Order: sequence, then C-alpha cells, then structure tokens
Amino acid sequence: MDRNTFIAGLSDLPARCILKDEAELRPYECDGLSAYRRLPWLVLLPETIEQVQFILAYCHTHNVPVVARGAGTGLSGGALPLDNGVLLGLAKFSRIIDIDLPNRLARVQPGVRNLAITQAVAEHGLYYAPDPSSQIACSIGGNVAENAGGVHCLKYGLTVHNIAELKLITIEGELLTIGSPSLDSAGYDLLALLTGSEGLLGVIVEVTVRLLPAPEQAQVVLAAFDSVAAAGQAVADIISQGILPAGLELMDTLAVRAAEDFVHAGYPTDAAAILLCELDGEQHEVEVQIDKVTQLLQASGANEVRRARDEAERLRFWAGRKAAFPAVGRLSPDYYCMDGTIPRKHLGQVLSTIAQWSKAYGLPVANVFHAGDGNLHPLILYDANKPGELERTEEFGARILELCIAVGGTITGEHGVGMEKIDQMCVQFNEAELQQFHAIKQAFDANGLLNPGKAVPTLARCAEFGSMHVHHGELPFPELERF
Amino acid sequence: MDRNTFIAGLSDLPARCILKDEAELRPYECDGLSAYRRLPWLVLLPETIEQVQFILAYCHTHNVPVVARGAGTGLSGGALPLDNGVLLGLAKFSRIIDIDLPNRLARVQPGVRNLAITQAVAEHGLYYAPDPSSQIACSIGGNVAENAGGVHCLKYGLTVHNIAELKLITIEGELLTIGSPSLDSAGYDLLALLTGSEGLLGVIVEVTVRLLPAPEQAQVVLAAFDSVAAAGQAVADIISQGILPAGLELMDTLAVRAAEDFVHAGYPTDAAAILLCELDGEQHEVEVQIDKVTQLLQASGANEVRRARDEAERLRFWAGRKAAFPAVGRLSPDYYCMDGTIPRKHLGQVLSTIAQWSKAYGLPVANVFHAGDGNLHPLILYDANKPGELERTEEFGARILELCIAVGGTITGEHGVGMEKIDQMCVQFNEAELQQFHAIKQAFDANGLLNPGKAVPTLARCAEFGSMHVHHGELPFPELERF
Repeated sequence: MDRNTFIAGLSDLPARCILKDEAELRPYECDGLSAYRRLPWLVLLPETIEQVQFILAYCHTHNVPVVARGAGTGLSGGALPLDNGVLLGLAKFSRIIDIDLPNRLARVQPGVRNLAITQAVAEHGLYYAPDPSSQIACSIGGNVAENAGGVHCLKYGLTVHNIAELKLITIEGELLTIGSPSLDSAGYDLLALLTGSEGLLGVIVEVTVRLLPAPEQAQVVLAAFDSVAAAGQAVADIISQGILPAGLELMDTLAVRAAEDFVHAGYPTDAAAILLCELDGEQHEVEVQIDKVTQLLQASGANEVRRARDEAERLRFWAGRKAAFPAVGRLSPDYYCMDGTIPRKHLGQVLSTIAQWSKAYGLPVANVFHAGDGNLHPLILYDANKPGELERTEEFGARILELCIAVGGTITGEHGVGMEKIDQMCVQFNEAELQQFHAIKQAFDANGLLNPGKAVPTLARCAEFGSMHVHHGELPFPELERF
Repeated sequence: MDRNTFIAGLSDLPARCILKDEAELRPYECDGLSAYRRLPWLVLLPETIEQVQFILAYCHTHNVPVVARGAGTGLSGGALPLDNGVLLGLAKFSRIIDIDLPNRLARVQPGVRNLAITQAVAEHGLYYAPDPSSQIACSIGGNVAENAGGVHCLKYGLTVHNIAELKLITIEGELLTIGSPSLDSAGYDLLALLTGSEGLLGVIVEVTVRLLPAPEQAQVVLAAFDSVAAAGQAVADIISQGILPAGLELMDTLAVRAAEDFVHAGYPTDAAAILLCELDGEQHEVEVQIDKVTQLLQASGANEVRRARDEAERLRFWAGRKAAFPAVGRLSPDYYCMDGTIPRKHLGQVLSTIAQWSKAYGLPVANVFHAGDGNLHPLILYDANKPGELERTEEFGARILELCIAVGGTITGEHGVGMEKIDQMCVQFNEAELQQFHAIKQAFDANGLLNPGKAVPTLARCAEFGSMHVHHGELPFPELERF
C-alpha cells in the first residue's frame, strides 16, 4: 500500500501521533542492538487504547505489518523497524493508573519506566522486583514483551513471575484481558504465553504488576578467585546448599578491571574472577546466611572474602557491576553482548571453552553475568571498522549459543531472541516444536503482521540454516565430551 | 467407528493395556466429582511413550476423541470419560526417572504420585512443594493438567511455579519438549499454557519438577475469632504487613466442629472461625515472624491465639485441616466443594453473602479454605436423594462462582474448570477472549478430539447460557453495592 494513502486513512488520529519525515523517523531506526538499523516506513505514537485498537484493525485490514516498541532498550533487536510497516511506539502510555496496597498490585500503562514503579511505591515500603540493567530507561511493556530479568531474578523471578494481568490488543483490534490478580486464572494460561512473546502475538496496553515488600536488610559479600572455574564452582556450592541469594554475580578479570577503572568500586584487580553475593530479608536471617556464604566461599578456594562494611560500600560494589557493560565498552570500539543460559554445574567448563575460543577467534571476551541463574553474558570485544570482524564476532556469538544448547541450556536468558538469535532457534527446537510455535502465532495473528521476521524462524529459514549446522544433540563440539 | 473395528487396529498394543468389559470399565466412570458418571467406551492403559504416540495418532486418524486420566482424584470432572471415546489412563507411567541434586530437579513419569516425589528426595533434605489434599493419591500428571495447589501454595506457588519441563504428545502423535530446566526458555512459553490446560491440548508423558530444600523449621499458630469477617480481616492484615506464611487457612464453625469430632485436633469448638497460620524457614526468622503474626492476630480481635506447643501438636492442627473435607462429609449425605478465588480484601463480605444465601437456599455451607490466597472452598451440604436438592445446590454453587467474578476474582483456584464450571466460563470471559481460547485449542487439536466438552465452552453453549444469565460487570447482585 502507498504510504500517503495509508496515512490519509489515519485522519482520526491527531497529527502529533504521526511521524513521517526522515528526521522524525531516524530516532526509531534501531533499538539497543544498534548493529542493525532500518528506517521505519512510518511511526505512530497513539495516546489511547482506542487509538491502538483503531491502528491495529486498520493495519490488519490493509495487510500492513506492525512492530511495537517500548523504550527501545532491548538487546536482541526485537524492536528493529520495517521499511514496509508501522513502528508503533507506546511511549505516551506513561501513566501509573492505580496502586492497590492491600493486594500489593500496581496497574500501569506499558510506557511506564521499570524504575518509576518502584519509585511510586517506595513510600509504602514496596518495590517492583525485576531490575534489568536498563531499569532507569526501559519500559514495563518492553519488559513484558522480552520477559526481562535482572540481578535479583535469581530470588525474585523474571517479569513473568511478577505480573498478574495484561490488557492486550490483537491485530484485529480486539481488547483482551489476560490473567488475573487472583491466584489462578480460569481458561488457558495466556499470561505466560504473552510474556516474552516479543510483540508477535499482540500489543500490550496495560500491565498489572505484583509489588513486594522491601527487604528489611540487604548485605553483599565480595569474593575473589584465582580462576573463573573456581568462582563457577563456588556458585554451584552456594546454591546446592539451599541458600537463595538475592543476587549472585560473576565478573572476570577483564570486566573487573574495566569496572574498577571506570567507577572505582573497590574491586581486587588482580583476581581472575570475583563473585558478588547479596543476601536480603529479615535482619538476623541475613546475618546467618552471610556467615554460611562466607564459609562456603572460603571452602571453595576464594583467596579473599570481603563483606561490604556499610551501605555506601554495598552500593559501590553494585555500582561497579551495573557499570560493567559501559565500562567494558570503553576498552573497545564495539562489543557484542551475548545472553544464554546453562545449568550451573557446567559454568566452569563453559567459561573455559569460551576463553579457548576467544584466543582462536582473536576476539577478547569479558564475562559479567547472573551466575546464580546460569545466565551468561559474554561480551565479545570487536571493531566494526575492521573488515570481517563483525562477521567473526557474530559467528563466535552463535557458537557460544550453540554451546549453551549442547550442555542442556537455552539461547536466551533475559534478552529475548529478536532478530539476533533467530537462527539459533533452529538449533534449539526441532521441526515439530517450531511448527507448534507457528500454530500458536496463527491463533493470534493469522496473517503474520505482528513483528514479522523476529523470535521464531520459518521452517524454510531453518532448512537453509540447517544445511550449514548440525542439530541438537549432534553438535560438532569435541570439547563437550568432557562435560 | 465401530468399537471392535477400532480395537482390531490396536493389535500392536499388549492385551493387558486394553480394557473393554463393563466390569473393567466401571472403575473409570467418574473422577473425584462423582456426581457425574459415564461408562467409557474403551479404556487404554499404555506403558510406553511410543504406545501413547501410537494411540493418539490412531485416534486422530479415526477421529475418535480421547480423555486422559491420572489418578482420577480431580474435583471438577476433568477426567469424566466419553461414551464414544478412549479413556487414556497414565497410571502405568509410575517411575521416577532421574533425580538431579545439583540442579534440584526430578524427572518423573506422569503417573507418579505427588507425595512419592517428596518421599524419594526427603533423604537429601529436599521436597516437592505443591501439596493438594489428595497428595497421597493424586498423580503429578493430573497436578500439571489442573495446575494443582495446596495449603503451601501461598508461599511456594501452584504447580506451574514448581515445574521446569514437560514432554507432551500431541493428538497427531508428535513428541514435544516444552520448557527448560534453565532460567528462561526461548520461543513462546508453552509450559504455563500447557499447565492447567486440563487435557485439551496434549497428553503429558514426562514432568521435570523443581525441588526445594526442606525448611529448617515450621511452626503453626492457631487463632480463634468471634466472627468469620474478623478472621478474614486478620488474613488481609497479615499479608499486607509483608508476612508470607507457608500456609494461612480459615475454617468456620461448622468445619471446625466437624473436624474436631472426627480427628480431635484440639480446636476451640466455640469459635465462629479459626485461622491456622504456618511460618517456615530459618529458625530465628520463624521465631521473629511468629511473634509478629501473634501480635497482628491479637490486634485483629482474635480471642485466643495459640502456638503449637510441639511438633506433635503442630501435626494435629494440620490433621484437623486436612481431614476437614471428609469430616464435613460425615454431617450430610452429600457435599459439593466449590473452588473460586477472590481478592483478599473482599473475604469478610463474600463469606457473609454466602452465609445469607445459605439460609435463603436452606443449604448449610461449611468453609475450609486457603484464606491467604483468597481461594475459597465453600462446601455446600445437601442430600442427592431429596428431589431438587442437587439442582438447588448447583444453582447456589454457580451463584457463588459468579460472586467471585463480580468482586474481581476468578471461578477457579486449584481444581480447574472441568465440566463443573464450564458455564461460569461464559460469565468470566467475553466473546473475544473465548474465541482466543478456541484459536489456541485449534493450534494444538484442530479437530477437537482431546477432552471435548470440558474447560472451555463453545460460543453456542455460552449463547444458550447467556440467555439465562447476565454478563460480567452487570451481575444482578444488589449485595455487591456494598463492596
């Protein structure tokens, strides 16, 4: 359809909701995966649920695809726009609608920033648990679309565990209420299906989140290790003792030094790896757990175990972790942040393999990640201006994801598949499973208009990719015989 | 299809897996909702995954419907058989396949009893958290199909929160692996969609459950109140203070007296209602919480607050609660156990309304339920031999469910919809939402062969039902103006 004809049909929409000039479109050309850019055909910024219903029904009628976008902080390219479709920005849905203290729920619009929820309820001693690194900027609608996590999701769960109800607009413009603030919801559980569905099934226009009481106390222990494998083993030891830290993060030497140079967190820069282990809860319980964790870390071979002396030091320890990505970014013109998950028991060996490959590819890797969850974030450092280096980086990244699958893990942790990992979906799932995904898509969006080309590959794409790759269970990794 | 012709095609199945004589079929005529009975056309008891694949593909080819059945303890009639279809019993899938201690997972067949999992891992200090009242008998496959709960799901979640992976056979005989033991699973989250789908989307042949470390200590406090409303308010007070009890159960006077007569739990029989509040965790933490809860209960107007003096008394307190259903069963020839969920803040008023209706219908009601979750279980006492009394009971039950919806709750807590509550689905959901459910069903089972007539009503059925009932938001309950 011709763009002007399409726009002419949008006359019910205020002019301020329609962006069509290149200068206006440019800010929407990419999300947090900025290696991929594409100028959108048209950007629409609706202000009401009725406008979203109208836009989607109109796109449906005219067979125009739609990509929904929150704050654009996603790391897997899920909000990369189309040159033949609408980029539907939800930024104007930025209102906290209702805070229900007795039931500890907040009903918010999708454009509300993650951190703004906690700020709005902090005076009541409550908070919203999932805390992606981008929480200052990222919006709750995007968090739901990607099933975002964060440092504290080891104890408090991913987005899906912290929401109660969604309002969703289908591509046909129907408003659906999904889930319930109650214990259980009758009918099929579509809440988890929609969470993490990366904008392929509908557009979220309201989210009811669960709030938690802020813990009485939080304490953090820092442990330094001579090897990454020893730090990985310590993680497995802590968890297998039944201790559930609020956060359990691993940083390797490259990440430690970069963070230390950047924010002066007080990290030991001679360590091969450090662990940050946070315990929270009732005061005495935290004390007991800190003692247990300290003993376990010492028994696991840590050569230094240090408890934050005060709240200021605790915040400094975390400031280093939270700044680790931009800090690593200062080491290299570009970096590529991977996101896969593995069973904790394979942490040490997978990290060793990545280190070997790093040498082979000639691409340095910094590791900063949610070790307690087994959620790896290798940051591959490269220079996009050197010919072939981006391609080599992508190949290395793909191998890491396939390694995650080979040890029984998955290609995602908390960043989604987007367009970044779509080929690895062919390795993770067999044909029957992918067909089932397409059948689900069909049940919501028969014409495939919502975020096409993301998250779930077509069987044709996998067939093409498969000619180069070997499927699950037969991956050509001789290293894996050791696992 | 003629039954003998159908059976002839099953020659690959050992004869011991095929039940066809009336005496063999009779035990399968109902599940735990025994008011409904129907002799199955044929019972098949496969022993291997391949046999399940074969049976389902064979039924698919010949357009024969299939009802899967676990231990048959379900309370909403989800496993009620068909007189023109196969009853597929999973009882022979009773093996614990693997226990993975480092990752605290157990991989089990669907016919394994809920309690058997905990028994198998108890020596390692672990347990499986969801504990429906039927946990001695009910099977994990049935727990997944109904998303079962239990006393401890307030703190530890429903079945969906305690499983990691499922193996599923589709009606076409395809084996799918759903979910992952890792943090997140790529692709659409089908694990929660399948959990609680009541056998309508596929047949579960393997479940990987999450295991939890057994708490260091558990303590229970019993509080007696002069009114049910005061007990309901105390529940809201405890939860809104950020305390998360392992269990928080309410029993009204009828239930208390019945349980006391039956098992001599030591309950105060003059109370209008009692609360049982269990705290578990690290020893000191439990002590602190018990003190807080005791103070809150006293402040909420409890006229007696008693802590179990020792483990024997704690178990007696719970024995009374767990025996409450059969104890109430001794008061009356029949009883009908409802299962709806409401926001906790409406507990007092909803219970008062039920009490008023109980008088109006002339049907006594005992209340024994998971108050912390807002998950009501009113037991309506009736005599099926008195003409019209079952019908009056069903009407009363339906009104209770609709009341749950009207205050913002749902028609299920942990028993599923089955055939019991199928009409109330028309009240809970609007046409677009039901259509979305049917589209999901279509994506798994286009010919509607899996458990037809359960869980999700056809739009035609709702249209018929709707002519007698008013839809969500316009329920004719003048009582509700007070809410």
